[in-house]
Amino acid sequence: MPSYTAPTRDTQFVLHDVLSVSTSDTPGYAELDAEFTSAVLEEAGKISSEVLSPLNPVGDTEGCVLENGVVRTPTGFKAAFDELRNGGWTALDLPEEYGGQNMPYVLGTAVGEMFSASNQAFTMYHGLTHGAASAILAHGTEAQKTTYLPRMANCDWTGTMNLTEPHCGTDLGLMRTKAEPQDDGSFKVTGQKIFISAGEHDMAENIIHLVLAKIPGGPEGIKGVSLFIVPKFNVNDDGSLGNRNAVTCGKIEEKMGIHGNSTCVMNYDGATGYLLGEEHKGMRAMFTMMNEARIGVGMQGLAQADVAYQNAVAYAKDRLQGRAVTGDENPDGPADPLIVHPDIRRSLLDQKSFVEGARAFLLWGAQLIDQSHRGNDEAAEGLISLMTPVIKGFLTDEGYDMTVLAQQVYGGHGYIEEWGMSQFTRDARIAMIYEGANGVQALDLVGRKLAQDGGKHVMAFFEMVKTFIKENEGNEALKADFLDPLKEASKHLQASAMYFMQNGMKNPNAALAGSYDFMHLFGHVCLGLMWARMGKAAYAALEDGAADEMFYKTKLATGRFYMKRRLPATSMHLARIESGADLVMELDAEQF
Amino acid sequence: MPSYTAPTRDTQFVLHDVLSVSTSDTPGYAELDAEFTSAVLEEAGKISSEVLSPLNPVGDTEGCVLENGVVRTPTGFKAAFDELRNGGWTALDLPEEYGGQNMPYVLGTAVGEMFSASNQAFTMYHGLTHGAASAILAHGTEAQKTTYLPRMANCDWTGTMNLTEPHCGTDLGLMRTKAEPQDDGSFKVTGQKIFISAGEHDMAENIIHLVLAKIPGGPEGIKGVSLFIVPKFNVNDDGSLGNRNAVTCGKIEEKMGIHGNSTCVMNYDGATGYLLGEEHKGMRAMFTMMNEARIGVGMQGLAQADVAYQNAVAYAKDRLQGRAVTGDENPDGPADPLIVHPDIRRSLLDQKSFVEGARAFLLWGAQLIDQSHRGNDEAAEGLISLMTPVIKGFLTDEGYDMTVLAQQVYGGHGYIEEWGMSQFTRDARIAMIYEGANGVQALDLVGRKLAQDGGKHVMAFFEMVKTFIKENEGNEALKADFLDPLKEASKHLQASAMYFMQNGMKNPNAALAGSYDFMHLFGHVCLGLMWARMGKAAYAALEDGAADEMFYKTKLATGRFYMKRRLPATSMHLARIESGADLVMELDAEQF
Repeated sequence: MPSYTAPTRDTQFVLHDVLSVSTSDTPGYAELDAEFTSAVLEEAGKISSEVLSPLNPVGDTEGCVLENGVVRTPTGFKAAFDELRNGGWTALDLPEEYGGQNMPYVLGTAVGEMFSASNQAFTMYHGLTHGAASAILAHGTEAQKTTYLPRMANCDWTGTMNLTEPHCGTDLGLMRTKAEPQDDGSFKVTGQKIFISAGEHDMAENIIHLVLAKIPGGPEGIKGVSLFIVPKFNVNDDGSLGNRNAVTCGKIEEKMGIHGNSTCVMNYDGATGYLLGEEHKGMRAMFTMMNEARIGVGMQGLAQADVAYQNAVAYAKDRLQGRAVTGDENPDGPADPLIVHPDIRRSLLDQKSFVEGARAFLLWGAQLIDQSHRGNDEAAEGLISLMTPVIKGFLTDEGYDMTVLAQQVYGGHGYIEEWGMSQFTRDARIAMIYEGANGVQALDLVGRKLAQDGGKHVMAFFEMVKTFIKENEGNEALKADFLDPLKEASKHLQASAMYFMQNGMKNPNAALAGSYDFMHLFGHVCLGLMWARMGKAAYAALEDGAADEMFYKTKLATGRFYMKRRLPATSMHLARIESGADLVMELDAEQF
Repeated sequence: MPSYTAPTRDTQFVLHDVLSVSTSDTPGYAELDAEFTSAVLEEAGKISSEVLSPLNPVGDTEGCVLENGVVRTPTGFKAAFDELRNGGWTALDLPEEYGGQNMPYVLGTAVGEMFSASNQAFTMYHGLTHGAASAILAHGTEAQKTTYLPRMANCDWTGTMNLTEPHCGTDLGLMRTKAEPQDDGSFKVTGQKIFISAGEHDMAENIIHLVLAKIPGGPEGIKGVSLFIVPKFNVNDDGSLGNRNAVTCGKIEEKMGIHGNSTCVMNYDGATGYLLGEEHKGMRAMFTMMNEARIGVGMQGLAQADVAYQNAVAYAKDRLQGRAVTGDENPDGPADPLIVHPDIRRSLLDQKSFVEGARAFLLWGAQLIDQSHRGNDEAAEGLISLMTPVIKGFLTDEGYDMTVLAQQVYGGHGYIEEWGMSQFTRDARIAMIYEGANGVQALDLVGRKLAQDGGKHVMAFFEMVKTFIKENEGNEALKADFLDPLKEASKHLQASAMYFMQNGMKNPNAALAGSYDFMHLFGHVCLGLMWARMGKAAYAALEDGAADEMFYKTKLATGRFYMKRRLPATSMHLARIESGADLVMELDAEQF
C-alpha cells in the first residue's frame, strides 16, 4: 500500500525562507511565525498520513454506492470526516464569526495540499463545502450567512456547485434549468445537473447545493443566469431541519478515478431555492467559487504528483534490478537498487523539481490572494487573476504527467492496482478537466486575462521578473545557474505575448491557436522564477551557516536541474506559438 | 459507445505511394498490388469495426474471471475468436507449410493495427500466439514445428511468453525458475511467473507457454537462462491432447486497463517442459519474440491513438459549445461545434499528425523486417535493429499522450466510463511498460544499438536522411515546408549522438542521462522523415492529377503542422541531453 509523508520541512522553507510570511504586512500574517505554522502543518501531516492516506485505496476499491436515493460512502470515510470536523480542519480560513479559524488562505492552502495528496476523493467533500461557503460569504445576505455558514464551517452541512447540464459544460449560456419566482420570495428550481461532486452522500446532516439556473423572462444566454441556494433539507426559521426538498440524486457516474467521491446526476423537480446575490448575476457569484476552486484544483495536480513521487522514490531505493554502469553499488546484494540508474534519476528529478517548484508557485499564489483579500492590494489581485489559469492548467497537466512518470518507475507493478500507483494517475486525470478544462483555462489566459486592464498585469509580471534578476545579478552562482536561464525563458514569454499583440488584433485565431502553449510557457517561467527565488534563499541560508545544510544543497541541485532540464521547453512553446494560426485553421471539419 | 473506422485509405497511401511495396524486389512483395492489399485491408477493417470494436467496452467492463483454476473471458470473446480463426486472420505471415498464409510482415502489421485499435485486450490473445509461434519457427526442431505450429497458426492452441518473476522483470539474470533435466530428455519446470498475458483462458484447446528458466549447474545470471516449451496439456505423439501438465493459474491481476486480457500469475510445479533452441541460449531465442513483440507494442501505441482520435473528431464535430471567435459558424444552432475552436483543432492536429506519421514509420519498420528476413538485407536488419526501441518507446509514449488529448476533448464526458474514452487511455498505458519499459528501450538504444557494429547503422540513418534531402531539394515547396525542418531536426540528432560519443566514453552516465530524450528526439526525426516522404508523395500525386485531390491536400496540411509544431521539440531534447550527467547523478539516494 502506498504511503504519504507530509512535506512539512519544504512547506516551512517556502513559507518562511522564500515568502517571508510572518514579516509581511498582510493582515493576519503576523501570527504565521515558524513555530505556529510548523505546529499546524505537523498536525495536518499526521492526520494525512495516518487517517486519510490509508483510506485512499479503500475509496478507490469500494467507490460510492447509490441505493434507494441514498449514497453510501466507502468504509471509514464517515469516521475520518468526523475526525476532521472535530479537529476544526474544515474551515481554517473562514471568519471566526461564522465558525472558522480566520487563518490566512496561504496556510489553509498548505494544509489543503496535504489532505489532497493523501486522499483527493475524500478531501473534495470538504473542499467543495469550503468553496460554497466562500460564495455565500461573499454574496449572501446576513440571514443566509448566519443560517448556513456556521454549519458549513464544521461540515455538519456540506456544499456543492451545480453548473453543468447534459448538453452544456463550458458554454453555460445554453443552460435549461429554470428557477420560477414564488410569492414568498423563494424560487422553484427545475432541471437536471450532472457531474455534481459530493452531490449526495451519508456524511452530513444536510447538503447545500449552489445551483445556476435561469429565471424565466430574463436576458438570453449567460446574462440571464442566476445563482440559488437549494438545501437538501429545507431549513426552518430556528435553524432546525425541515422537510426534504425536491432534489434527488438520479445516478452516480462510473469514473476513471476519484471513486471515493460521489459524482452525481442531480434532479431538481420544483425544489425550493433562494437567490444568492443578485438576479442574473449568477456567473459573477459563481466565479467567487470558481477562482478559488481553480487554485484548489491546481493544488490537486501538485498533490498527486508529490504522493506519486514519494512512492516512486521509495520503490526506486528498494527494488533491486540491474547494476550501475559505473560499477556495483550494492556489491553484496544480487543487484543494485533502481535509483542508481541515470534514467530513473532523470525521471525522479523531473518529478521532484516540478513538485517543489509547483509548491512554491502555489503558495505564492495563495499569498497573493491574501494580499488581495486581506490587504486590498490591487496589484496582487491583478497578478493572481492573471496567474489563476496558469496555476490550474499548468500544475494539473504537469502534475498528471508526473504521476505517469512515477507509475512508470514501478514497471508492471505500476499497472496493476495492487501497488496503488495507478490510482494516483487515474485520480490526477480529473484535475485537467473539472473547474474548466485546461483548454478553457488557456482561452481565459490569452483571450481575457492577458489584455485585462490594458495588459497591466502581465507587464507587472515581466517587470517583477526583470527586477528580481537585476537585484540579484551580483550573486554569481545564482546568476549562472538560475538567473540566466530565467532571463532566457522570460524572453520567450515576452516574445510570445508580443506575437499575440502584433497578430491577434487582425486575427484572433493567431493568439488562440497558441493559447495552450502560452499557458505552459507561462507556467515554466513561473516555476523558473520560483526556483530562482528558492535558489537565492538557499544560498543565503548556506551563507548564514544554516544547520540543515543538506536540505539547502539538495534544494540547489534540484533547482539547477529544473533550470537546465525543464526550462528549455520554453523555446519549443515559442516556436509552436510563432507558427501561427494558418496551420491550425486550414483544414475544414470534414478533413479531420 | 465509441466506434472505429479502419484507416484503409491512409494505409494504402503509405504502402503504395510512399513505400512502393508492390514494385519492391523483396521476395513476396510482388503480390502486394493495390487491389490485393485493399481487399485484405477492407475485410480486416470490417471485422475490426463490426466484431471487435463493439466487444471492446464489454471486455473492459466484464474483465476476466478466475474460478476454480479456469479463466472465463468476457461475453462474446470466444465467438469473435472463432470468427478470426475461421477467417484465417491469426497467421497471415506464418509460412504456408505450417498453416499460415505466408504474407509479408508489412501487411500483417497493417492488419494488426486495425485489430489492435478496435480491441487491444482481445488482439493480444492471438498476437502473443503469433510471437510464440515465431520463436518456435526460428529455434524449434522440425518435430516441434510440426507439432505446435499448425495448431498455433489457427489459434486452436494459443501461446504465451513467461519472463517476469515477482522479484525480477528487466533484470532476468535474477531469475529463480528451475528446469531440471529428466532421463527422457524433457525437463521439470518449477517456479512462479507473473504478468503472463493470456496465461489462462477459455478460448483455446491448449496453451503453449514459452518459459525462461535456469538449468541447475549452468552459468550464473543471464547466461544460464534457457527457453522451454511448456504446454498446458501434454501432447501425445499422435498430436492429440494428453494429460494436464503441472502448470496452473494462481491469480489474475486487477489492472488499470486491458481488462479483457487475463494477466496471470502462473505456477509451474514440476511441469514437463521441452528445451527450445540451445541450452543457456534462452535469451537469444526469447529475443526473436521480443523484437517482433516490441514493434507490435509500438503499433498498439499508434492504434489506441488513432481510435481515440477518431472518436474525439466525431465528438468535436457533434458537440455544440461556444461560438467561433471570428463569427458564428452554425448561426441557426444554439452554438457552434467544438471543432471551430483553435485550441480544439490544435489538439486534434497534434493527434492526427502523430497518427499518420506513426503509421508510416511503423509500416516502414515492417518493410525493413521483410527486407531483412525475406531479402537477407543486412543494412535493413541493422536499421530496424537500431529503430526497434524507437518504435516501441516513442510510439507508445506519444500514443498514450494522444489518448489523453483525445479524452480531454470530451471534457467531463471523457472522465466517466460511459463514453469509452477513459478505456483508450487506460489500455494505452500498458504499452509504455510491457515488452521492456520505455526507459529500458532508451537504454537499449543508447547503450547498445547506437554503437553496434561501430555505429554503422546510425551513420547509415543519417546518410539516408541527408540523401533524401539532397535528392529532393529541387522541389521548392517540399524544401521549405518539409526538408528544411527535417534538416534542422536531424542536426539536433547528430549533435546528440556526437555529445554521447565525446562524453560517454569517459563517463557512460553522460550518455545514459540523456537516453530518454535521445529516444524521443530520434522518434521525432523519424516521423519528420516519414512526413517528408509523404509530402513528396502527396505533391507527386497532385501533380499527376490524382482523383482524390482532397486526400493529398489534407495530407500536406497535416504534414506541415507536424514539421512546424511538433519537430521543434528536438531542440529541447538536445538541450536536455547536453546538460549532461552531473545534474542527474549529483544527489545521493537519501537526498531524493
